[in-house]
Amino acid sequence: MNINQLTSLIKRKESLLCVGLDTDLALIPKHLLEYEDPIFEFNKQIIDATLDIAVAYKPNIAFYEAMGIKGWQALEKTIKYLNQHKDEAFTIADAKRGDIGNTSRMYAKAFFEWLNFDSITVAPYMGEDSVTPFLDYKDKWVILLGLTSNKGSKDFQFTESNGVRLYEQVIKKAQQWGGPERLMFVIGATHPQELKAIRQIAPDHFFLVPGVGAQGGDVAEICEAGINSRGGLLINSARQIIYASGGKDFAEKAREMAIATREPMKKYISGLKAESIIG
Amino acid sequence: MNINQLTSLIKRKESLLCVGLDTDLALIPKHLLEYEDPIFEFNKQIIDATLDIAVAYKPNIAFYEAMGIKGWQALEKTIKYLNQHKDEAFTIADAKRGDIGNTSRMYAKAFFEWLNFDSITVAPYMGEDSVTPFLDYKDKWVILLGLTSNKGSKDFQFTESNGVRLYEQVIKKAQQWGGPERLMFVIGATHPQELKAIRQIAPDHFFLVPGVGAQGGDVAEICEAGINSRGGLLINSARQIIYASGGKDFAEKAREMAIATREPMKKYISGLKAESIIG
Repeated sequence: MNINQLTSLIKRKESLLCVGLDTDLALIPKHLLEYEDPIFEFNKQIIDATLDIAVAYKPNIAFYEAMGIKGWQALEKTIKYLNQHKDEAFTIADAKRGDIGNTSRMYAKAFFEWLNFDSITVAPYMGEDSVTPFLDYKDKWVILLGLTSNKGSKDFQFTESNGVRLYEQVIKKAQQWGGPERLMFVIGATHPQELKAIRQIAPDHFFLVPGVGAQGGDVAEICEAGINSRGGLLINSARQIIYASGGKDFAEKAREMAIATREPMKKYISGLKAESIIG
Repeated sequence: MNINQLTSLIKRKESLLCVGLDTDLALIPKHLLEYEDPIFEFNKQIIDATLDIAVAYKPNIAFYEAMGIKGWQALEKTIKYLNQHKDEAFTIADAKRGDIGNTSRMYAKAFFEWLNFDSITVAPYMGEDSVTPFLDYKDKWVILLGLTSNKGSKDFQFTESNGVRLYEQVIKKAQQWGGPERLMFVIGATHPQELKAIRQIAPDHFFLVPGVGAQGGDVAEICEAGINSRGGLLINSARQIIYASGGKDFAEKAREMAIATREPMKKYISGLKAESIIG
């Protein structure tokens, strides 16, 4: 999916919502355990119930990997199902990969060829050659970790060198590797002030913003700080939506929570100008 | 495997050699393609041919992931095979994982419970809660990226803050999270001078040293700079050993290359004192 298609989707659905598919066998409703593949069945019902509300889906790869071969098979089915609705949702492999060049090429092959995701999250520690192999694919995206939502983000990301914090350095340097049509940044919702400042450093790039819902970030505050003329935000909520109910009504309740999460986004999107879609 | 067992293994085999299983269907000998699982067959023959020479094996997870479900099945078979020789080799999942706490727990489950590796490589960018879930497993290890072997290591890892480089900061801070019996660092062989200085910061920790062979690092120079009383080094070579020959003699040639790579290590190991094995 390219940036124009993504912006169109955001305007059409009046939404910046990304649904995080952190699907855990221990947390899904018990009646699904009767299905041959409970994880896929859960994901399918969540997707069906939210596809007109969400613009993106983000399977958290760790949750599938933890289940072994069966987990990878459930992930494969989930992305195939999402790819049957290719124009309806942007897909994110939340995998946080990154290695030396010849190895990153293999990770790119896994997520862009085998699984055919639109994008993958990548860790920046190993620098340029760990990131660029993912940028070689047309209409595929790198979502590079900038400032993450977790407590440990304080350990190294705020380290200052000549007045520049590490996450700022990452965001500045990475813009030499890929433009806003190919590269996004992860900016945690738990740092709204910093998000506002990061928007100055990277005015045109999309940000994937995890950390609303269970982690405490506020949707309106993020929109206020981060929206740009293309939308520029994908705001992820996982647990709060997908586990809104543990009963047979889980998909219905997930839909209700998705609608409620989208609500404060609407007014920011309706303010976007028609001409913001670039050629 | 615990640190005493690892040191014993190093002394017994007079070796610090780690064989990197970067197994690529496009590079293995053609006659293996007739096997039901050519990747596993290749790995098995490499392991059989080098098990008395190498102290560790490091499958590079990207290479398996790139082959989809079949790749994961080949990896599963490879680690099961290695675990049949549990006292003979330390196993490393070179996966470079790392995410917020609840997600790192899932990655730990994948590599320590499903696949039962002794250790996993972890990226430090997301800080403490991305690393500590891997440290909760008895006799399992985190191998944290310190200073990597690739060109991109220059992009962020050398960034100085108050005279301290980022990789130094990572190595110092991480020692608060885990001791030498649980935590190692990745230090690329392409930075021998820095490796010597890092040994001063972390005198007791093991270093996994990639980058000899195809990437150009020198074995004797690394031993000189990095050996400690427990051995303290696992020196990885992948392509140069496993692809020493592309013909039917690949395992034999891999063995010869493993022996040649081990040769300069011997004199450093024979210098280790018997009492260096701690209780």
